[in-house]
Amino acid sequence: MSRAPSPALVSRVRGEAEAFFRSARGSHDWDHTERVLTLCLRIGRKEKADPGVLTLAALLHDIGREEEDRSRGRICHARSGAALAKRILERNGCDAAAVAAVIACIRTHRFRRGGAPRTLEARILFDADKLDSIGAVGVGRAFQFAGEIGARLHDKRIDVRKTKPYTREDTAYREYLVKLGRVRDRMTTREGKRIAAERHRFMADFFDRLNKETDGVL
Amino acid sequence: MSRAPSPALVSRVRGEAEAFFRSARGSHDWDHTERVLTLCLRIGRKEKADPGVLTLAALLHDIGREEEDRSRGRICHARSGAALAKRILERNGCDAAAVAAVIACIRTHRFRRGGAPRTLEARILFDADKLDSIGAVGVGRAFQFAGEIGARLHDKRIDVRKTKPYTREDTAYREYLVKLGRVRDRMTTREGKRIAAERHRFMADFFDRLNKETDGVL
Repeated sequence: MSRAPSPALVSRVRGEAEAFFRSARGSHDWDHTERVLTLCLRIGRKEKADPGVLTLAALLHDIGREEEDRSRGRICHARSGAALAKRILERNGCDAAAVAAVIACIRTHRFRRGGAPRTLEARILFDADKLDSIGAVGVGRAFQFAGEIGARLHDKRIDVRKTKPYTREDTAYREYLVKLGRVRDRMTTREGKRIAAERHRFMADFFDRLNKETDGVL
Repeated sequence: MSRAPSPALVSRVRGEAEAFFRSARGSHDWDHTERVLTLCLRIGRKEKADPGVLTLAALLHDIGREEEDRSRGRICHARSGAALAKRILERNGCDAAAVAAVIACIRTHRFRRGGAPRTLEARILFDADKLDSIGAVGVGRAFQFAGEIGARLHDKRIDVRKTKPYTREDTAYREYLVKLGRVRDRMTTREGKRIAAERHRFMADFFDRLNKETDGVL
């Protein structure tokens, strides 16, 4: 357990983090970070995690995304974000134990090249980040993203094995079939699993209804 | 009641209509026309309307939209679409009574400068077009459109009197508060009212849930 970060430190880190999102798209902008922070603290209370580490990790978790986008995916935002976060935290006088705990969370929040989240706070950040991609907010983000990349609204008969992301066929429904529908099975904390199960049900009902409406049944 | 259009006429009109949508955005593309056609025929069966007129009117109802977009809203797509439709129908040998009935539907389907829809088929086209903007499909279209114009995902505290459309603040939720939430009160047919009431409930529940999720309650 590290020393709690002061309100002044949190405020400075928040300001520096938010500046990375000036040209971010609506489906993945600073509001996403704020929602992930809310979820982290909510799960953290149940799981008795360190709220200071969670706050700094949530605020900084996506600051590498702009760099990843500019590199067209060559750079991993979890890795570059961890490096950026380290410099920001050290420059703002964050103690070494907290820095180490926070960057461990950021580096593994994708559970890809950065490896699996191991600490409690890292697992909570992973769960919170994924939870923001399902439920009503996940449905909204999936359609918003489809709009941003110029995709179709819907295609119930889509063959996900044959369609590629970032084309006109990359619908919200494709994202649901390929990714969002599996999020609940990837949760790593008890409270994350509980929230995911409930959000999953809502999302599944939404797409079921969408198919019925577009078929002319509802 | 006009003579039923032949399958060959419908097929030619469909082909000509679809060609107007080559560069349409996902939130308002040819799939929207197909969904409106499905709804028109479904409502038409209940209301005992002319399916031939409804089919041609639905297929052609938005062909003026590209022109409206190019003119930045100066040209009304209901009016220009009616003129375009007249030429297409006449060129394809549609009988005069059907042409008149179809263009009356198209001209009034917005219920703005074109005046109120008066015939049964015109009222059904109006209802069907609006029904496609609510329910699950309406929710999806609202977020998709927000993505297309680069808006934010969500802002529960939005002041709709102060925010303008086509800016970053033109969220799906704003669209719901300003327009979509009122669609059910504008329905002109009994079956349209029934479908709208049910779709409205789903949509209202969706945004209520979205607010709870983003507040960190669900």
